[in-house]
Formats: sequence, C-alpha cells, structure tokens
Amino acid sequence: MSTVTRRNLLGMIGTVAGSTAMYHAMAAMGHAQQSSYTGPIKLDGAPQGTKILILGAGLAGMTAALEMRAAGYEVEVLEFREKAGGRCWTLRGGDTYTELGGAVQNVDFAEGNYINPGPWRIPYHHHAVLDYCGRLGVQLEPFVQENYQAYLHRSDVNGGARQRVRDVKADYRGHVSELLSKAAEKGRLDDMVTEEDREILIESLRDFGGLTDAGEYKRGAESAELRGYDRWAGAGADGAPIPSDPVDRDEVLRSRYWEYLAANQITNHQATMFQPVGGMDSIARGFEREVGDLITYNAKVTALQQDENGVTVTWTPTEGGEQRTSTADYCVCTIPFSILSQIDHNLSSGISNAISEMPYNGSVKWGLEFKRRFWEQDDRIYGGVSFTDQAIGQISYPSTGYLSDGPGVLLGGYTWRGPESYKFNAMQPEERIEWALRMGEKIHPQYRDEYKTGVTVSWHKVPWVLGCSGLWNDRERDYADAIKVDNRVVCAGEHLSYLPAWQEGAILSSLDAIGRLHSKIVQG
Amino acid sequence: MSTVTRRNLLGMIGTVAGSTAMYHAMAAMGHAQQSSYTGPIKLDGAPQGTKILILGAGLAGMTAALEMRAAGYEVEVLEFREKAGGRCWTLRGGDTYTELGGAVQNVDFAEGNYINPGPWRIPYHHHAVLDYCGRLGVQLEPFVQENYQAYLHRSDVNGGARQRVRDVKADYRGHVSELLSKAAEKGRLDDMVTEEDREILIESLRDFGGLTDAGEYKRGAESAELRGYDRWAGAGADGAPIPSDPVDRDEVLRSRYWEYLAANQITNHQATMFQPVGGMDSIARGFEREVGDLITYNAKVTALQQDENGVTVTWTPTEGGEQRTSTADYCVCTIPFSILSQIDHNLSSGISNAISEMPYNGSVKWGLEFKRRFWEQDDRIYGGVSFTDQAIGQISYPSTGYLSDGPGVLLGGYTWRGPESYKFNAMQPEERIEWALRMGEKIHPQYRDEYKTGVTVSWHKVPWVLGCSGLWNDRERDYADAIKVDNRVVCAGEHLSYLPAWQEGAILSSLDAIGRLHSKIVQG
Repeated sequence: MSTVTRRNLLGMIGTVAGSTAMYHAMAAMGHAQQSSYTGPIKLDGAPQGTKILILGAGLAGMTAALEMRAAGYEVEVLEFREKAGGRCWTLRGGDTYTELGGAVQNVDFAEGNYINPGPWRIPYHHHAVLDYCGRLGVQLEPFVQENYQAYLHRSDVNGGARQRVRDVKADYRGHVSELLSKAAEKGRLDDMVTEEDREILIESLRDFGGLTDAGEYKRGAESAELRGYDRWAGAGADGAPIPSDPVDRDEVLRSRYWEYLAANQITNHQATMFQPVGGMDSIARGFEREVGDLITYNAKVTALQQDENGVTVTWTPTEGGEQRTSTADYCVCTIPFSILSQIDHNLSSGISNAISEMPYNGSVKWGLEFKRRFWEQDDRIYGGVSFTDQAIGQISYPSTGYLSDGPGVLLGGYTWRGPESYKFNAMQPEERIEWALRMGEKIHPQYRDEYKTGVTVSWHKVPWVLGCSGLWNDRERDYADAIKVDNRVVCAGEHLSYLPAWQEGAILSSLDAIGRLHSKIVQG
Repeated sequence: MSTVTRRNLLGMIGTVAGSTAMYHAMAAMGHAQQSSYTGPIKLDGAPQGTKILILGAGLAGMTAALEMRAAGYEVEVLEFREKAGGRCWTLRGGDTYTELGGAVQNVDFAEGNYINPGPWRIPYHHHAVLDYCGRLGVQLEPFVQENYQAYLHRSDVNGGARQRVRDVKADYRGHVSELLSKAAEKGRLDDMVTEEDREILIESLRDFGGLTDAGEYKRGAESAELRGYDRWAGAGADGAPIPSDPVDRDEVLRSRYWEYLAANQITNHQATMFQPVGGMDSIARGFEREVGDLITYNAKVTALQQDENGVTVTWTPTEGGEQRTSTADYCVCTIPFSILSQIDHNLSSGISNAISEMPYNGSVKWGLEFKRRFWEQDDRIYGGVSFTDQAIGQISYPSTGYLSDGPGVLLGGYTWRGPESYKFNAMQPEERIEWALRMGEKIHPQYRDEYKTGVTVSWHKVPWVLGCSGLWNDRERDYADAIKVDNRVVCAGEHLSYLPAWQEGAILSSLDAIGRLHSKIVQG
C-alpha cells in the first residue's frame, strides 16, 4: 500500500468513524509501533525443575535472569566482574579501574560527579530500556543532545576559531533556502514543481531559512531570530536588539561544519533523550536488586560444553581458588564474542564462525573533572555536544547539576572511529588524558587553568569485553546462525541485534533469545 | 567592521597568540556577550535614609526591592495580591482562582501536579533569570521544547490525521534538499555558485536532507535515519529495520505543516531551555525569601502622586479597612500599564500617553489533568509541544515526572493570537475547558476517557493585570518617555523592555530602571 493511499484511508476513517477509531486503525497499521518491544514478555508453562545457566550479568544476562526466573525456571548467573552491569557502567570518585596492560586509574572525582564510559543516553524510541527503567524504579532525566549554544570546531577553519551550533545551523539553512528560493523565482524549477507548489515553496523557505520578504538571507530581523544577535534584546535606552552578520555562503559550505549538523537529527539522537539520574549504572543496580541473588560474581568462564543431557560450564574464581563447574539444562550466553572466541566451547560450526570472526569496534572516552563548570559560567552551555575534527571527536557537557557550584565532569572525548581509537590504545592513560586536554583547549581555552582530574577508558583495553560493540563481517551469512538456539545454548547481547552498541539492542536480543529458547523447551 | 573582516581577524589572533588570547579577543568584540545582563548590579553610595516605594511584587518589583535594599535604601513594597510573583505564578491542587466576572475555579490537581499559567520556560540566553535562580537557590531542570515525537495537526490536512514532527521535519528538509541538489546538478545555479561550491553544496545536501547518493529523497536507509521506520531496528530474525515512505513533496508543501517547524528554532525556543523544579513560582518564592519582609500584601493602589518633596501612594487593603497612604522619596512603579491607566496619577504627559494607550496581549492557557500520562504510555511523547491550527494553538507535555504512574497535567492550550483569545474570554471556565477537550481530542483520542480535572486562565480576565503582556502602539514615539525617570518615579516591567512577556524582560527593565534612578539620586 503506498503512503498516499494509506494516509487517505486514515483520513477517511478519521472522518467517518471519529478519532478513536482512527487511532486504533493507525496502531493496527503499524503507525504507532516504534519498537519490537511490546511490553513485558510472557513465558508460560516452564517445565518444573528446569535449570538455566546464564553467562554474563550485563543487561542481556540480567534481563534473561529476571524473566526466566519469573517464568518458573531455576536460574544461575555467572559474572566475571565483581558487580553486574557490564558496559552499563559508571565511574565515580573512589572507583579503581585497571585496563589491559595493567595501568591502574584511581578515580578522584568529587562527590556526586561521574562519567558513563559505556552507554550514556537513551532515545525515546528505545521502549524496552524505558519500560525496564519504569519496572525497576530507575529515575530518568533528559539528556541534552542538541544544544544550539555548543561549538563546532575544525582545526583548519578560520584558524581554528570555534563557531556556535546556532550560527552554523541558521547560516546553512539560510543559504540553501535562499538559493532554492531564487532558483524557484527565476523559473528554474518549473519542470520539477507546479506553479501552485512553487509559490508555497518560496513562502515556506522564508520561514525555514529566515529569509527576507525578497527571499534573501542576510543581516536583519529574520536571520537574527534564528542565528542570534550582535546585541541581544534587553531593556533601557539601548535595549533594542541588533542583528548579526551571517557568515558568507562559500565560507559556510567550505567550512564543512554542516557535516556535524546531521548528527543531532538522526533517530537515535533526536529529542527527547534520557539518562538515568546519578549515572547509567542505576539501570544495572535496578536489575541487580531483582536478580543479584542469582549471580555468582568474580567467575571467569573457561569452557562451555553441551551434550544431549545438558550444559556444563567450567569457571575459575578470579580472586583465586579451584576451578569449578556449573551445570544446567540450558544456557543463555551473553559473553561478548570477542571473549567467547577465547573460551573452549563446542557450539556448532555456524555460530562458531560468527564467534571467531566478529571484530569489535574500538572507542575511547574521557571523563574530565574541572574546578568549576566554566562551560556554563563562561560559555552558557548547558548540556549538549560540541564537535571537533580532532581525534577526541566531541565534548559533551553534563545533562545534570546545571548551574551548580563546585567541580563538574564533562565527557572530554568520545571517538568511535577505528584508526583514532587505535592511536589512543597505544598510550598510557595519563598520555591519553594529556591529548584530550591538548585537543579540548583548542575549543575551551579555560581547560588548563581549570583541570582537576580525569579518567579514560579505551574499550579495546577493557579486559572483559575487548571492544565497544560487535561488528558483522558478513551479517547476511552469519546472523541467522548466530542467533539460533544451538541445541541447548542460545547467545544474546547487543552484538546479536540490529541496534549494536545500544542497551536496547542487548535487551531486545535477550528477550528474543529467551522467547525462542522457552518455546523450544516447552515444545520439547 | 564586517563579519568576514572580524572573523579573519579572530583567525589571525588565534593562529598567532593561541586560543586564550583569542577567547579574550572574542569576548572583547562582543562575540561572547549574549545579554545586557553582566552580573549582579552594583549600586554604590545610596544616601542615608532615602526611602524607595516599590509598587508591585512581581519579578521586576522584587528585583528592585532586593537590589535597592542591598544598596542601602529603605524599601517598602505594596502588592495587590496575597502573595508575590505576579505573572510568575503556579496553580496547584488546593488553589482557588477567581477571574474577572466572578467565576471561581478550585484547582483539584493531584499532589505534585501543577500548571504555570504565565511564563513557563527559560531560554539559555536569559542570563539575568538564570543568574537570579542561582543566587536565590532555585533549582532548574530542562524544559523540552522540540520533541520529534510530538504531533502536528491541521483540521483540513488528511482528514485531520496528525503527523509526527519527526516525519514532517525530515520530509520538508528532504524534499527541498532534493530540489536544490537537482537544480545544482543540472547547472541551474551556475550563475550563483562557483563550480567548487556546487560540488560541496550537493554533497552537503545529501547529509542535510537524507538523500541517496543520486541526490534523491525517497524510501531507503538515508531518509529513514531521519524520519524513522515502518519497522524499527530490533533483534531476532525480524530485527532488521524497514524504512518508511516519505510523504510526497506536494503534500508536504500544501499541508503547510512547515509553518510549525520554525517555532522550535527561534532563539527564544532553542535548546537548552529550563524550567524551575516544582513550578515557575519557585522563582517568586526565592525572591520572597529575600524580600518578603518588605512587602505589604493585599494592598490595592488607588493613587500615585509626586511633588518636589516626595511620592505619596494611596492604597486600600483588599481585605477591607481604611484607605491608607505610603510615602517615600522615590518610587519604582511596576504596575502593568493596563492597571496603572486606571489609577489616579500625576506623571508627566509623555509617560502618561504610553500608560493610557498601551494595549495588552490576550492569551489563554489551560492546565488539564488526566488519569494517566497517556501521551507517554501510548504515544511515547516525553515533554515538548504538539501544534494545531485549532484555537488552542498547541499542547505541551510536562517536562518533569517522566514515566511516572498516576495522573499527569499537560498544557491543554496556549493561544496568544488576539481574536481567538477574545472568543475564549467570553466563555465561562467550564465552557473554555470543554472547548480545549473538544479540540485536544482531535489530536489525542484518549482525552475524553482519561480526563480528570482542569483549570483555565484567560489573561484578559486576570484582575491584577488584565492581559498577558504589554504591546506598543508606537514604540518609536513613546518608549523613551515611558522608561525615563519622571522626576521621582520610574516605571519598570516586561512591558518596558524589548523582551515583552518574558521574565528576563521584567528583570532587565528593573535593573536598568533602578540603575538610572540610583544615578539620579546620588548625583542629586
């Protein structure tokens, strides 16, 4: 059914049957459906005394633990770390983190300050994460992604002078609107646009681009309402606002600042976004309150074997002690393939290919604490992201504690492009931090004076995952094999979803996997 | 100095002297200056025993009271209402509001729910409001203005079927980008754009509009990343996302939905915006903590007279009792001109013209409480604004208490266009509410089933202001006279600023007025 037909149908239903009918019709037609998550999973009829062993207590593992225990299964969870959450992780003052290679970082942030080295934001359409937050009592607050007042920066543009997102956004829109308006006025679109549409188009571009009545983008009330003022409106004799000068079109195009604009507009970054109050690991703690009693911590899995009778997992306590085994009827394995590929297992060849071949994204993040929130006090930036072409990629300002005194922690860099991560991987933490300061001070000259302490996580060096998120060499070939229930074992996690690196992917993958495992179990 | 020259200069400074030098240069050139507010006002040398009488305990009046007492003046404040704040006002369960004409509304909202009938949001560049919030200990949280998931609605478009902001935004951008890209490809911009710029332009439009490599806006991965999916990315066998169909260009243009898009982009609505935690009157309460002891409440001013010796104000207690007088050396009058024009005064003719001729904007707001947050639970709308061409104008969802159970209050309408307000003015509150439900249910069919209780404020019927904000018939002619210190009296408030209807305008006007009054006093 084409869009127009579908929309006409909806219009018709709306007219004839009233809006409630229309709403149900819309829902039925998939219009109101935005996630494969349709509410709490229902697993009925678990056979008495069936045991499930879950490997990994990240969000995928704990979702499986919570739902399978609720369904009546006996559940045991093995977790490598001393706490649950996996990449759903928050670093605070007093925490210690040891990366691969042995470098130890003692986090020295002030009370209440934190950084989320892994996932840090939740889109409005990640229904599963949001619903689990509701069920688990995790309080959410808005995460500010787009901030018109944040900066864009390129080392080779204007001698490295930063520009406000607001100015670039307004100027790009203004200039392209002016060009299109002029082309329409001159009749150059007449083979593409009807006369009626041409007039509406020209009118709409005035609105969209902040153009004058004559269709021009230039200094004046119209452009200033979008890009801001040389002197902002106030009071008194000098209270009248004074418009600002747009940047010339060729300069806007050649700056390539427009490359950054789309980043705030994609579905995964659109407003309204959320973050848990107090740090992302509030979600981990919420799950842990429910299933913590099922988890054995500090358990390093060394082998996963299955046969017609059951599953046997061999593991070693990381704090020392004898090798042990856990057995079960079935297993949900949420160990990242980067780790699982190093574990002795007898999974079938299809899934083994995916396990051994899946590369993991690299990504580096920095949490930098400064003596004061200079980005708020001096730059009037409250949350949001500044972008730069330097290897740190971006700087994100805290979406909480606005206007507070005392030290603040910003995200000093988040690079997810491979080559740059590799460069940082080779460095010791203090050197990585030095680079983040060196790059960050190009945008915020206050950096050096105000810097207090920092921590940096290079995901390729995180011992329990060795990367940030799974990639597919050949999803077409491997995906179906990797997600299927392989006799008594099913794998789950963000790497086995179409939302890699997102918590929503981990949870949806887990729900899908346990749903299929459960069906297999009850069907015998 | 032209922009380019100025920017080139900044580039040069940046290259030669490093970024700190550049930052100071930028600040000096006004680049970092976004408000006439430059921090707490300093009023030195107030003559001993000089008394200031302040009329009105809204934000302008309380700013004057706080700063003039701090400067050493003796201060008395007269306020018509039983509490301070003026239009900085929040209605909660248990509140009673009587409008002009006598209709009484007893607000019946659940604990914690509220509506701000007056100002409800604070832009990032309203430095004075933000700084007073900091000084007064008023906690702020983000106010979500733009929400991609909110709706746009027109009664005559597609039989009144609502559309998501996200879809309209993506489709409008996509179609205009495609048109401009095609025009550029066909050489039709060659007299306007150099060959080098043409290539960058085409490349940038792909990014900006979500176009294919061939420059087309159509169903596919590129457009779906902006406008969303028929099936959103998930996990399992059916986890792959399925793109959605853009709405046709002619339909997008003729829907005129683009008219709503600019509303979220103007400087006064750009992210990051704020609201005080718990209601806008947290600001009023903050000021009141500081200056409440100076305020006489329930005092209806009936006359304002000045001569060479001082100022005499006559007032009557609204709760009954004898007419009284207050005298002072000087007076700061923040009474709205709509009210002041009905008060016996002997101000000079210049300002008297402005006082008697200033019309006040009408505006109607509704706070509607529903049994549950269906907009979150069913529609996945978290904060933000839906727009409609119906007289209610917009529906705004609460920017707080996200994902909570129990009843929620949304802004059921905010109309600031004159004729529509007049229609609502003629109605009793219950009839106004019925209309808000009748219009709102066109967008949210859940309205009738879920409605619980409501309150509505028509600003023309608010006894103590008779309107929403002051307008200028002829600012050119009247403004200078209206703001000047007229012998011993100076007027202040949002109506005497270039930020009418904004709290920032009220505070900036007050600071400007008391600064000039103080200068006059100390200079004798």
